[in-house]
Amino acid sequence: MMSTQALGERVLARLDDLAAITDEPGRITRLYLSPAHRRAADAVAGWMRDLGLDVSEDATGTVRGFLAAGKPGPQANKKLLIGSHIDSVIDAGRFDGCLGVVAGLALIEELTARGEALPFGIEVLAFGDEEGVRFPTALSSSSACSGSYRGEWLELADVHGVKLKDALRSFGCDPALIRDAAIPPGSVIGYLELHIEQGPVLEHQGDALGVVASIAGQSRFRFTIKGEAGHAGTNPMPLRRDAFAALAELSVIIERIARQGTGSLVATIGRVTVKPGAVNVVPGEVEATLDIRAGSDAPRLAAIDRIRHEADQLAERRGVKIRIERFLDTPTCPMNAELQDGLASAVGSLGESARRLPSGAGHDAQAMARAFPAVMLFVRSHDGISHNPAEYTSPTDLGLAVEAMIRFVVDLGAKVEA
Amino acid sequence: MMSTQALGERVLARLDDLAAITDEPGRITRLYLSPAHRRAADAVAGWMRDLGLDVSEDATGTVRGFLAAGKPGPQANKKLLIGSHIDSVIDAGRFDGCLGVVAGLALIEELTARGEALPFGIEVLAFGDEEGVRFPTALSSSSACSGSYRGEWLELADVHGVKLKDALRSFGCDPALIRDAAIPPGSVIGYLELHIEQGPVLEHQGDALGVVASIAGQSRFRFTIKGEAGHAGTNPMPLRRDAFAALAELSVIIERIARQGTGSLVATIGRVTVKPGAVNVVPGEVEATLDIRAGSDAPRLAAIDRIRHEADQLAERRGVKIRIERFLDTPTCPMNAELQDGLASAVGSLGESARRLPSGAGHDAQAMARAFPAVMLFVRSHDGISHNPAEYTSPTDLGLAVEAMIRFVVDLGAKVEA
Repeated sequence: MMSTQALGERVLARLDDLAAITDEPGRITRLYLSPAHRRAADAVAGWMRDLGLDVSEDATGTVRGFLAAGKPGPQANKKLLIGSHIDSVIDAGRFDGCLGVVAGLALIEELTARGEALPFGIEVLAFGDEEGVRFPTALSSSSACSGSYRGEWLELADVHGVKLKDALRSFGCDPALIRDAAIPPGSVIGYLELHIEQGPVLEHQGDALGVVASIAGQSRFRFTIKGEAGHAGTNPMPLRRDAFAALAELSVIIERIARQGTGSLVATIGRVTVKPGAVNVVPGEVEATLDIRAGSDAPRLAAIDRIRHEADQLAERRGVKIRIERFLDTPTCPMNAELQDGLASAVGSLGESARRLPSGAGHDAQAMARAFPAVMLFVRSHDGISHNPAEYTSPTDLGLAVEAMIRFVVDLGAKVEA
Repeated sequence: MMSTQALGERVLARLDDLAAITDEPGRITRLYLSPAHRRAADAVAGWMRDLGLDVSEDATGTVRGFLAAGKPGPQANKKLLIGSHIDSVIDAGRFDGCLGVVAGLALIEELTARGEALPFGIEVLAFGDEEGVRFPTALSSSSACSGSYRGEWLELADVHGVKLKDALRSFGCDPALIRDAAIPPGSVIGYLELHIEQGPVLEHQGDALGVVASIAGQSRFRFTIKGEAGHAGTNPMPLRRDAFAALAELSVIIERIARQGTGSLVATIGRVTVKPGAVNVVPGEVEATLDIRAGSDAPRLAAIDRIRHEADQLAERRGVKIRIERFLDTPTCPMNAELQDGLASAVGSLGESARRLPSGAGHDAQAMARAFPAVMLFVRSHDGISHNPAEYTSPTDLGLAVEAMIRFVVDLGAKVEA
C-alpha cells in the first residue's frame, strides 16, 4: 500500500512517460490519430496489460482496460467506467486529460495492492478526441462510448485535407464498427473522471480537490457594430457614431452583468477587430466575439437577455447598429447527484473540504453523461494555468485525488453490497 | 462679374479638371512628385499664365502665380499669399486642397473682371506635399515657403525606396535651392487658405462658412495593457486580469473626459489589437492608439493628465499593467486674430453667420503660420465626409466662400490705404 505522496509521485512519473510521447519534439503535441497518439495508446494498453486488465481498442481508438468484479453480487456483471483523454492541444501541459487515465490505472494497481475486491467491474477508458484540435468534432470518442457518435463527423477533414474516416483507418480502426463502441447503459454503474481544474478557483480557496456539480452551459456570439468612420480631428464627440466606443461601453456593461450573475457566470470578449483601424480615424465598424458560460442554464440565459436588451438601448443611444449572431449554444450538463454525494463524502473522509463547483471547460464527462450517471473530481491547478507547458499540480494533490477516488470506489462497493 | 452661383460653378469645373488628373485611372490619387502631380502642377501653371500671372515653381515643386499690386501705396511691394495643396490621399475627393488653389485663381479672375485694383500683390501657391502620404514628411512644401524646411527630410524614402531628394530631381526641382524657396516674412501681408471643413460642424449648425480660430494641437499615444490570458470558462470574473476589459473601461473614461472637455476636445481610440484573440481565451494583452486634439493646448494637456491618472488607478484596481507612450505631440496653432476679424466681417457682410471654430485637421496654414500672419476659411462639407470620393460641397457654398475671400481682400486693400 502506497502513501498518498507515493501515489502522487507514481501518477506524476506516468504523466512524464506520456509527456515524452509527442508529435513535436521539444513540446507536447498529441493530436487525435497522430503517430504520437498511436504510441501513447500503445503505452497505455501496455500498462493495462501489466495490471492484468482485459485490453481492447474500440473503433474510434479509445483504449479500454477491463477489470472484472473481484467478488460475486447483484452488480457483478456491471462496471464503473473511469476515464479521460490522451490527446492534447498543441504545446500542451502534462496533466490535461492524461491524468484521468493514469489515475484510473493507479487506482486499480493500488486496489490490488490493498487486496480490495470490488462487487463490480472497472473499465479504464483512454479517449483520443477531446481537445477537438485536429478535426472540428466535439468529444467524438466519448460520444462513441455513450452511443451518440454522429456519422457525419467521418467526412470532416483536418487542415491537410485528411478525412476523419481515413485517419481512423490509418490508425487501425474500422469506422464501420463505431456503433459497436457504444457501451450498453444497463451494464454501467457510472462514469468517473479526474481532471485538473484548469482554473484558479480551488487554489484561490485553498482546496486541493473539488466535486464538479455541472459542466457549464455555454453560448457564443458574434457582435457586429456599425457606426460611421470619420476624421479623428474634425468630428466633435457629440456628433460621432464611434463603433469601438460603443463596443467598449457594451463590454463594461457585459462585465457588470457577469459579475452580478449567479452560478459562476462568466463572460469573455475574446476576439476584437476594429475597422478601419487607423490611429487618426474614428472606428466605423467593430467585430467581436462573446463567450458566456454558467454552471446552470437560468443565469446564463438571463444574462444573455439582459445583454441583448442593453445592446438595443446602447445602439439607440449612440446611433449605431448592433447585430448579434449566436454561433454556439450548449446547455448545462449536471453531474449525477448521488455520485457527487459519494465523491464529496470520500473527499471529506480525507480531511479535505469537498466544495462543489461548476466546470467552465468542456470534458468527456459531458458526452458520457448522455448515457451514464457521470461525475467529475477536480484537482487544483497551480495558478489556474491550462493548455500550456506550465500546467502543474503537486504530487501531494495528485495523491489526494487518487486516494479520494479509491475511497469513493470502495464506498460504492460497500453500498452495492448493503 | 459673376454671380455667387456662377463663381461656385466656375470653381467646381476647375476642381473637376484637376480630379481628372490622377495616377490611378478610375479614382483620384495624386501623390507628391508623382506623374499626376507633375501634370496637375503644369495645369495650374497654365491657368495662372492665362490670368497673366508671373508663374514660377520653387525647389519643392510649389507652383506660384504672382499678381503685382494694381495701384501704388505703402504696401505695394508686399503681397497677400493665398494657397493650399494639389496632392491628394489615395482614392481622394475632389475638394481637399485643390479648392484653396482654385479659389485663389477664381478670386484673381473675378477681381480683374470687377476692375478691382489692390494696393498689394497677390501670390497664389499650389503646394505639393500636404497629405504626407508618399513620404513621412509633414507639410514640407509650405515649410519651405515659411523657411522651416528640414534638410533631413531629403533622405526620407517612399515605400519603393525612392528618396525625397531623388524624387524632387526627377520632378525637375533642385534640392540645393530649397532654402531660396523661403518667402521673406517682411514681404508678406498674410496667408489665406480656403479649405473644406472635413467635418460635420458647419453642416450641423446650418452654416455655410466658418472662420478658423486655431489649428488643433494634437497628441498621439500607444497604450499597451498587460493582464493575464486564461481559459474563458474556468476563470471566475473576480479573479480575472482581462486586458481588453481594462481597455474597454479606460475607453469609456476617455470618452467621458473628452465630452466634458472644452476647446472642442476630441479623443479617438482608432487602432486596437487584442491578444491572443481567441473566442475562448480571456485577453492577456491589448495594444491601442489614442489620438487627442483640441483647439487650444490647455484642455488637451489637462485631459492627458486626467487620462494618465485614471489609467494608473484602473491598472491598480484591475491588477493590470498599462504602458503609455507618446509618439506625436503638436502644439495648437492659433490663427492671426486681426485677419480672423477681417474674414469674419467679410463673411458677415454676405449675410452669413461667421462662427469661429478650431480645425481638428492639420493644414498648410500651420506651416505658414510659423513665418506669416495666417488665417483659414472653412466651407461646409456634406456629411463631414473627407478623404473619400464622396467629399462634396455645393456650388452655392463654393461661390459664397470665394465671394467672402474677395470681400476680405478688398476690405484689406481699403484698410491698407486708410
